[in-house]
Amino acid sequence: MTDSLRIEMKSESISSDVTAVVQQLEAAGLTVSVNDATPIYLSVQGDISESFVTALKNNPIIADLKEITGTYKLTSREFHPGNSIIKVGDIEIGGADFVTMAGPCSVETLDQMMTCAKIAHEGGAKVLRGGAFKPRTSPYAFQGLEEEGLIYLRQAADEYGLKVITEVMDEANLELVCKYTDIIQIGARNMQNFRLLEAVGKTTKPVALKRGISGTIDEWLHAAEYIAAQGNSNIIFVERGIRTYETATRNTFDVSAVPIIQKLSHFPIIVDPSHGVGIWDIVPPMALAGVAAGASGMIVEIHPTPSEAWSDGPQSLNEKNYLSMMKKVTILSQTMKELTQLD
Amino acid sequence: MTDSLRIEMKSESISSDVTAVVQQLEAAGLTVSVNDATPIYLSVQGDISESFVTALKNNPIIADLKEITGTYKLTSREFHPGNSIIKVGDIEIGGADFVTMAGPCSVETLDQMMTCAKIAHEGGAKVLRGGAFKPRTSPYAFQGLEEEGLIYLRQAADEYGLKVITEVMDEANLELVCKYTDIIQIGARNMQNFRLLEAVGKTTKPVALKRGISGTIDEWLHAAEYIAAQGNSNIIFVERGIRTYETATRNTFDVSAVPIIQKLSHFPIIVDPSHGVGIWDIVPPMALAGVAAGASGMIVEIHPTPSEAWSDGPQSLNEKNYLSMMKKVTILSQTMKELTQLD
Amino acid sequence: MTDSLRIEMKSESISSDVTAVVQQLEAAGLTVSVNDATPIYLSVQGDISESFVTALKNNPIIADLKEITGTYKLTSREFHPGNSIIKVGDIEIGGADFVTMAGPCSVETLDQMMTCAKIAHEGGAKVLRGGAFKPRTSPYAFQGLEEEGLIYLRQAADEYGLKVITEVMDEANLELVCKYTDIIQIGARNMQNFRLLEAVGKTTKPVALKRGISGTIDEWLHAAEYIAAQGNSNIIFVERGIRTYETATRNTFDVSAVPIIQKLSHFPIIVDPSHGVGIWDIVPPMALAGVAAGASGMIVEIHPTPSEAWSDGPQSLNEKNYLSMMKKVTILSQTMKELTQLD
Amino acid sequence: MTDSLRIEMKSESISSDVTAVVQQLEAAGLTVSVNDATPIYLSVQGDISESFVTALKNNPIIADLKEITGTYKLTSREFHPGNSIIKVGDIEIGGADFVTMAGPCSVETLDQMMTCAKIAHEGGAKVLRGGAFKPRTSPYAFQGLEEEGLIYLRQAADEYGLKVITEVMDEANLELVCKYTDIIQIGARNMQNFRLLEAVGKTTKPVALKRGISGTIDEWLHAAEYIAAQGNSNIIFVERGIRTYETATRNTFDVSAVPIIQKLSHFPIIVDPSHGVGIWDIVPPMALAGVAAGASGMIVEIHPTPSEAWSDGPQSLNEKNYLSMMKKVTILSQTMKELTQLD
Repeated sequence: MTDSLRIEMKSESISSDVTAVVQQLEAAGLTVSVNDATPIYLSVQGDISESFVTALKNNPIIADLKEITGTYKLTSREFHPGNSIIKVGDIEIGGADFVTMAGPCSVETLDQMMTCAKIAHEGGAKVLRGGAFKPRTSPYAFQGLEEEGLIYLRQAADEYGLKVITEVMDEANLELVCKYTDIIQIGARNMQNFRLLEAVGKTTKPVALKRGISGTIDEWLHAAEYIAAQGNSNIIFVERGIRTYETATRNTFDVSAVPIIQKLSHFPIIVDPSHGVGIWDIVPPMALAGVAAGASGMIVEIHPTPSEAWSDGPQSLNEKNYLSMMKKVTILSQTMKELTQLD
Repeated sequence: MTDSLRIEMKSESISSDVTAVVQQLEAAGLTVSVNDATPIYLSVQGDISESFVTALKNNPIIADLKEITGTYKLTSREFHPGNSIIKVGDIEIGGADFVTMAGPCSVETLDQMMTCAKIAHEGGAKVLRGGAFKPRTSPYAFQGLEEEGLIYLRQAADEYGLKVITEVMDEANLELVCKYTDIIQIGARNMQNFRLLEAVGKTTKPVALKRGISGTIDEWLHAAEYIAAQGNSNIIFVERGIRTYETATRNTFDVSAVPIIQKLSHFPIIVDPSHGVGIWDIVPPMALAGVAAGASGMIVEIHPTPSEAWSDGPQSLNEKNYLSMMKKVTILSQTMKELTQLD
Repeated sequence: MTDSLRIEMKSESISSDVTAVVQQLEAAGLTVSVNDATPIYLSVQGDISESFVTALKNNPIIADLKEITGTYKLTSREFHPGNSIIKVGDIEIGGADFVTMAGPCSVETLDQMMTCAKIAHEGGAKVLRGGAFKPRTSPYAFQGLEEEGLIYLRQAADEYGLKVITEVMDEANLELVCKYTDIIQIGARNMQNFRLLEAVGKTTKPVALKRGISGTIDEWLHAAEYIAAQGNSNIIFVERGIRTYETATRNTFDVSAVPIIQKLSHFPIIVDPSHGVGIWDIVPPMALAGVAAGASGMIVEIHPTPSEAWSDGPQSLNEKNYLSMMKKVTILSQTMKELTQLD
Repeated sequence: MTDSLRIEMKSESISSDVTAVVQQLEAAGLTVSVNDATPIYLSVQGDISESFVTALKNNPIIADLKEITGTYKLTSREFHPGNSIIKVGDIEIGGADFVTMAGPCSVETLDQMMTCAKIAHEGGAKVLRGGAFKPRTSPYAFQGLEEEGLIYLRQAADEYGLKVITEVMDEANLELVCKYTDIIQIGARNMQNFRLLEAVGKTTKPVALKRGISGTIDEWLHAAEYIAAQGNSNIIFVERGIRTYETATRNTFDVSAVPIIQKLSHFPIIVDPSHGVGIWDIVPPMALAGVAAGASGMIVEIHPTPSEAWSDGPQSLNEKNYLSMMKKVTILSQTMKELTQLD
């Protein structure tokens, strides 16, 4: 008996062959994901009996079967050799296009959100961010507008045809957050809040999993596995800087996490240069570094008037600087597409 | 209007003076803590009106009034100049005696717990530890026996007259854990799980708050404030090592956290040398270092047969080594009591 | 009396005005650097009397005079607002072009160096690297071929029209190294070997100053100041990764150091993605990240057969992978030039 | 042919047996160290031929021969199972007594040194510290009095019967420093200044080797090996705190380095709580922690008037606090002697 299996289809297999195998697997109650890769791989999860494995081995259109072991199997690229593309409506994260998510740290007012959404959209962002539940070091700091904030966020996003990403801090508010958001964000402080990971793993929403404040790559992959093991394979890694001895920046933006994660996992990774460095004028070069490192997108903090932001003002871009950065990000990501074709 | 006030009684005030002021404060719906210090201080919390403050100022037996501000006021030593002593039954943490908590990483079987409790008690420990809900990096690792584990833990502790400490990982199981434990442990990964901190803050149980994996002293003090702000002032800090570049030890045991926390806060701090270094034969010297640094106690992992432990075997002491260490800890803590009297 | 002065010329000043002021300053025994910026600034060093300052203030073509204080004044952008361009023969580091330095970790044989030089040159590198004096953790590890290595390095570089960069580890060998090299490298372990910094500060050779293994930005700027204070203003910062808790990479490549250093200093900064991550297949995306972050160049390890390298094989690129990376680096750095013109 | 050999004498061997073997080894041009352990071990260095090894094997009084390999063999406890005791005149570091070294960060004046020596001696210190060559982050900070400082240091130490420890920063001043000092200190920034390590390895002076600012235990052991490999086996490790993310203390004082080094090496280790935490009132509890962890001694900064110190004032103890600490250190180290006898 095994629970994670990678099937490699013969190179001559055609669409109908793949369909037939998928149907056979699904009929056996298994979950199957067809890899967008050459050769075609099927990643299979569920209770797979030995006799069923034997039957698959005898199927002439199957080239190879590999049982996946290890402690983060569903997240591993070994299990799923092709890139996973996370769909959020018509947006694809992990696909050919670099996807930008932008917005303020905290949702403050409807006006502020409307302005942010307008700016975000103008720069080419596809997703609006904004925190309605804020994890703050001090219990006396602003903790977020909660549902009121979610309403503003959704309304502003809808007005400009944007999707929504926002953080959930506990299981108790998960249903509420899911009502308003398209992507659930797990914050850095909760990367190893295992019960929360399991709870979002039981939803079908895409989950943006931030790296912990001092999370190792290994722990991060296992955190994703907590989500995937519950059945939710819509995972997006978010590199947001790590804690080091250096105080010139808020965090040390570990852009090497992009290719390292891509090597070890099939889930896409995006970057958060705002938290990565914490200084607004260092954000644009780090956004470009993220594009060049091969990230599938980024999440960035903007504010109409950063000096008046209720939180994270020093790392927020104003309209002018955001638009100037996005012009460069757009050009650079076009160049990156061309470079990818050189491989 | 203020919400945190420190009252300094005149040095000539007598017990009945203190009682009178306390009664006046409590009659006004305020929470008062009498400091075990010279001069006597009263630490007062609640909605304190300006007219009430004026009235206090006119009280001739009051030497000084100080409004406490800052972002971790209830936790600060400024608010509460004397040491807070946390009572767990007849055990006092933060008092004159060094208190040892010992037990296995995970609760495994009733037999194992009975043996551990016997050993713990023999060495002089007053509290039995054991995890029934285990935060594990991988979702496929042993996650704890849950309520069954809590039952074994309680039973073993009761058999040897020990108190119980165990970890709670989420709000959903808080009530269950509270049913069995004397001290709630908040694990390192949850130091900034703010909703969980608030939840335990609403209980009256003593809370052992572990330092985060890369928690700063400042964040740790604020995490305590999340608990205290909800009304629970039975907080015990636990230094358990921090994440650094060094790989010779599992963590870097930051024994300097002991005097640093004691300088900034009135809540007691104990050490966890087992997680601090992660290597059993380095645990005893680190336990002694903790005693010498002035910690109020320690929590240490023991196991009848460490090589067969379901988790944390490499850092667990067997009976012989635990007893040998405890003999030294007992002598050293006696010496430390004498040194304190030199001040 | 002051020793560091920044002169801002009036915007209407013309070339002959600048020349006149420079001549006046040099006639007074001062060292002057004309900034390539608008408006034109003159950065002046030496013993500057108050009466001389007064005289300058009265010069109608001078817009402003600013005495530079602080603890790394010559290195600061305040002192020298324009970018400093370091010339190595006809190569300019800090100018419009991205400059690549490539070669093996250690000089091994003449053959190896010839092959490396050929490959480096083919990919577009302008400078050949190779260690003849190797700082090794163990005294029993290969310590470098010393002068023999320098001879091979020089010969191979000359054969392909490349410049040379190599490390000096102590003052005793400085003269010897200078005989063969175009750029002196100060290794990470020596970033705060202050006597060595002073010694290279007394030469006129360009100095590539690697960031210390856990060097802060602030310490690094001050290390440069040790060199500049001795009269050598040909300094190139090299970001090579910092030591953190993460073990998935050899170091954590801090690409944010590029814009941070550029904000605080006028000296150029290049990146070393090989040491930055220590894993050959992660090097190319990090090289691209460095280009996108705005670095003036990079230094990268290559080897004809990495598996046989006497040191640093795992992070060395073979010919194929180096050439593939350089094709992308070249295209990306062209895009970056275009983006710069958007500002 | 081998170069490092450990000879285990039979348990029944007597003094004359040991002498005979030592004479045989020395006659063969080898360096021998007799271990203060049971059974008696001889640690042998030099060019040891196979035939000589065979001859030793046939010696009936020799129980076992072990060739030592590895990359820090002379430093390893495998090579030298007994503790090495470093003699500085009649002082023994690594022996039964805890040895304190005290003095100011910088040598400032003769008066200051005389006062410091008087205070140091009064508290029970045996060695006087003081920097005459100061490694400073900025080139414009006070760099030390150089030879003048060495003269004051020596004179003050001699007046009170103390030994001298002081830092050497480069090979050029090594001879000068050796003229005045009893113990050469290698500073944290020079832990991997390999040429300097080799230079002090060629002297016969005891060397206090500070752990690097972010030195790993492994690198530190290898740094010692650079010294030992040159023939100087008078090495004292000094734990002085490591660089971490925590900013509440200057460094993170890694007291676990004491038992870790003792496990891996035979050379003694002392602690430097002053640099370890950088805050004077946290120094005494950390000194006690060092004693309890089993350190062989400590080095601590004192100053007659810390607020006027030319460097490191915030971490320097004044007379009163130093004497108060030393009273406790003396009592505690007495208790530790007793605890050792329990083993």
